[in-house]
Amino acid sequence: MEKYNALYAQSGGVTAVINASAAGVIQTIRKHTDKIGTLYAAKNGIIGALTEDLIDTSFETEADIAALIHTPGGAFGSCRYKLGSIEKFRKQYERLVEVFAAHNIRYFFYNGGGDSQDTAYKVSQISQSLGYPVTCIGIPKTVDNDLPFTDNSPGFGSVAKYVAVSIREASLDVASMAKSSTKIFVMEVMGRHAGWIAAASGLAAQKTGDAPHLILLPEVPFDQAAFLKRVDGCVKQYDYCAIVVSEGVKNAEGSYISESGLVDAFGHKQLGGVAPVIAKLIKENLGYKYHWAVADYLQRAARHIASKTDVEQAYAVGKAAVEFALAGKNAVMPIIVRESNTPYRYTIGDAPLEKIANIEVPLPAHYITEDGFGITDACREYLSPLIQGEDYPPYSQGLPVYVTLKNKMVAKKLAMGFEIA
Amino acid sequence: MEKYNALYAQSGGVTAVINASAAGVIQTIRKHTDKIGTLYAAKNGIIGALTEDLIDTSFETEADIAALIHTPGGAFGSCRYKLGSIEKFRKQYERLVEVFAAHNIRYFFYNGGGDSQDTAYKVSQISQSLGYPVTCIGIPKTVDNDLPFTDNSPGFGSVAKYVAVSIREASLDVASMAKSSTKIFVMEVMGRHAGWIAAASGLAAQKTGDAPHLILLPEVPFDQAAFLKRVDGCVKQYDYCAIVVSEGVKNAEGSYISESGLVDAFGHKQLGGVAPVIAKLIKENLGYKYHWAVADYLQRAARHIASKTDVEQAYAVGKAAVEFALAGKNAVMPIIVRESNTPYRYTIGDAPLEKIANIEVPLPAHYITEDGFGITDACREYLSPLIQGEDYPPYSQGLPVYVTLKNKMVAKKLAMGFEIA
Repeated sequence: MEKYNALYAQSGGVTAVINASAAGVIQTIRKHTDKIGTLYAAKNGIIGALTEDLIDTSFETEADIAALIHTPGGAFGSCRYKLGSIEKFRKQYERLVEVFAAHNIRYFFYNGGGDSQDTAYKVSQISQSLGYPVTCIGIPKTVDNDLPFTDNSPGFGSVAKYVAVSIREASLDVASMAKSSTKIFVMEVMGRHAGWIAAASGLAAQKTGDAPHLILLPEVPFDQAAFLKRVDGCVKQYDYCAIVVSEGVKNAEGSYISESGLVDAFGHKQLGGVAPVIAKLIKENLGYKYHWAVADYLQRAARHIASKTDVEQAYAVGKAAVEFALAGKNAVMPIIVRESNTPYRYTIGDAPLEKIANIEVPLPAHYITEDGFGITDACREYLSPLIQGEDYPPYSQGLPVYVTLKNKMVAKKLAMGFEIA
Repeated sequence: MEKYNALYAQSGGVTAVINASAAGVIQTIRKHTDKIGTLYAAKNGIIGALTEDLIDTSFETEADIAALIHTPGGAFGSCRYKLGSIEKFRKQYERLVEVFAAHNIRYFFYNGGGDSQDTAYKVSQISQSLGYPVTCIGIPKTVDNDLPFTDNSPGFGSVAKYVAVSIREASLDVASMAKSSTKIFVMEVMGRHAGWIAAASGLAAQKTGDAPHLILLPEVPFDQAAFLKRVDGCVKQYDYCAIVVSEGVKNAEGSYISESGLVDAFGHKQLGGVAPVIAKLIKENLGYKYHWAVADYLQRAARHIASKTDVEQAYAVGKAAVEFALAGKNAVMPIIVRESNTPYRYTIGDAPLEKIANIEVPLPAHYITEDGFGITDACREYLSPLIQGEDYPPYSQGLPVYVTLKNKMVAKKLAMGFEIA
């Protein structure tokens, strides 16, 4: 049996654990050198695959690959670049197959969200039709947790843990000072289209009165009057109010709240930052002193407080991707299948790439309390297992030790370059 | 020898480790029940001492007091309330002594920053002159690290560790995506008057090219042209630029940058948030895509990633405060005395409260690089020991377990209440 090479690529926003998936792929391939040749990685995601900027992972030591498991970010680089439809952008797909053929690549592992699974599916299709069949396996990844079929998306559990830990800690601070100082704390978290991350902050509240007191979700149109009433009641009862707001919160007309308030000195709308808008709204209507935080990239890079469950699952889907390819599967994505809640047990299954594309799973209605400002017990039961366990990185000199790979580039073989649109 | 009671109060902004100082006080007093009677804690800081809202710490279990060592925030409540001059606000001081006398309190442990040390000093003076001498010991605390005499202020080391860890992690994220997406990341940190916290982020950079690439300090007037030139150069060289900005950065005229740019829809200036101002400045002048984060309370409450050194020192100054009082010292504050850098060794000394008041120690000039955008090796040598060691809290269900005390209130003895100005 002729040995073919493989290509691994990271796609879209990176996470605290996407490199754990990479480690799962690499370590598993290294156990099967009889079946798969060289594993390349695309530099900066699919862009590197198009421009033939390939990294030879063979030069990385076992220790460095193992260190990927505790290193956040994307070790080979990622990108936000969506390949278009095959009809309109056929050249891109042909180019990919051309690069694959030039480097004898017959396995493609694409680690990303819904768009990436779509791309992986199209590559599997077009490579067939061009007579150079490539085994394409998607590997799930997204902090947004909006992929279908899989119990959750690797990357999400660690952000979930970070936001729950952070609001618990910051709220202890606010509660200490509330009698004479700040009464309102607003923490903005990611989630442009789905409220999974904001919802996860709700895990910090274990009994009545615990923070966060109110959660603003993209799934619930912002009701200003109801919100202000709840904030006021909360301050009157507990002396303070801790609020978690998803960046994707919209008003009843469907406009982002983050774009509704602030303009800069030139009259331009402020980009991003719903937390200050909410904080000022409270100040102007209720007069309470506020503080706000915007976690931004800190949340999705926070490997120092990653969920052990998330790290293990991220590795598991990377490993399964290779095993599926070796078992002859194609155009599938490993998924996490929840077998039980208590104790939390899961297995790795698979789902067809064809059905994953362009489905974004929002927080279901029964996960949201009737008033729209909190999460239900059903939601807690779903979320809680995902943040279980700590998996601390090693430290040196007081700081986590994260690995930087050699990333040795492969000599190009194609005469022509490729212009990224 | 008649036994007197003691009062402990927390003051000003709380930290991740102020409760470790409280534990140091409480556990040490519990070892000396032959010499000190009941330890009370003022509810919500000095306000509780004035209004006779006292907590009896005797009701707290040994386990709960031990748990304070890993619990952020202020377990008894704190406040921002500065007692005025004795001349103009004599009644406040007389009231304090009246409350102390009513509860047989002859020891006062005040855990706070410079203002609190000033208050503790004044109480020691006026209690003498009123014929009810109270032993007053200050306990240092401030994330701002601006107290004189002491090597550092408990609370600072943990924020320092948090910001260095956070910028290292977020920068790995940005670096992964920079080729095709976000090129600028701005992280805002605390430090209204001194740049210690922003400087500490510089520990994350260990070799040329490491993030953070630029640090904006309150000690250095913001030079927009020089800054933008450096940002552009950084992006051209490394594909991205990670910037840490202190909330206290001012322009050449001495105005806060945070107040210079944004106005809301009503024309009011935006309160807080220098990170978005810096990010937009870069976008408007250089066109680079940006993200920004404001850590706010997350940084000073982040017990989950506290510095072990900081926790130990916070405990040590609490313990020393009691030991100093028992040794007959008065109107002093335990200080950390650095004995050596490598290995880091320190002892606990003391400094007179009289000399601590109203001195804020800024980052010295030789800790700042000549260009004003970075820290020197001397600064690293000073800062590095303060972030050493991890001291993780216990976890349950994926979240840190922080203690809430019983905080059983003591029956009031005074007929008159007291109105807080």
